[in-house]
Amino acid sequence: MPEISLNHLAVVVDNLDDALAFWCGALGLPRAGARQSITGEGVDVAFLNLGDSHLELIQPTAEDSGVARYLAKRGPGLHHFCLEVPDLDRVLQALRDSGVELINEVPRERDGRRYAFVHPGSACGVLLELYERI
Amino acid sequence: MPEISLNHLAVVVDNLDDALAFWCGALGLPRAGARQSITGEGVDVAFLNLGDSHLELIQPTAEDSGVARYLAKRGPGLHHFCLEVPDLDRVLQALRDSGVELINEVPRERDGRRYAFVHPGSACGVLLELYERI
Repeated sequence: MPEISLNHLAVVVDNLDDALAFWCGALGLPRAGARQSITGEGVDVAFLNLGDSHLELIQPTAEDSGVARYLAKRGPGLHHFCLEVPDLDRVLQALRDSGVELINEVPRERDGRRYAFVHPGSACGVLLELYERI
Repeated sequence: MPEISLNHLAVVVDNLDDALAFWCGALGLPRAGARQSITGEGVDVAFLNLGDSHLELIQPTAEDSGVARYLAKRGPGLHHFCLEVPDLDRVLQALRDSGVELINEVPRERDGRRYAFVHPGSACGVLLELYERI
């Protein structure tokens, strides 16, 4: 069976510039591309290289976004992580067969990838993203 | 400069057997070694392979442990992650020079590694472990 690997680990932050000063400036993680504004989701994001995977820093830019509500409720910190799987449909069916609750019963598609989130209530409190390259 | 990589990502769980049923049984992550009891820290842990890094599942076994208090306060979920660095002393000094607060000013040593934790207040709410093989 092909291997499941970590694609990225995401941290919600108050201020992306301050976060970059810590993770890149002080700690020395290299940037992976430019800062991006995802206006549809009300967030600015930046990716850093973490060996074969990435650290994603997410700053909410709209007060009504899910990430803004998360930040207001829980404060900054670890938000989710994303595993790359070789066959998303097979994995999702195996999870359903085990009684796991999915947030996205039908995978979403964006930028050459299909992805779905598993409900934290079924994943030890973790917001888990599963994704497949297409 | 040698690369910083992710060594492991740790999740606090209520019940290690239930957690293994999800992460290994339903999702298919392979085990990396046997379950271990770390009595000095009041936890049982299990490691799973996640590409080149690991997912650590931590169940508190003593009510007065730090992890038990974390679980009681925040519930199960993402707890910390650990970056492997090539020169821990150099990284810690660079962090101090940037005003970052460390939990362990003097690195601890165990099982062929030196490690220190960064305070979440200086790391975007993340409990960050830094470690070096010795």
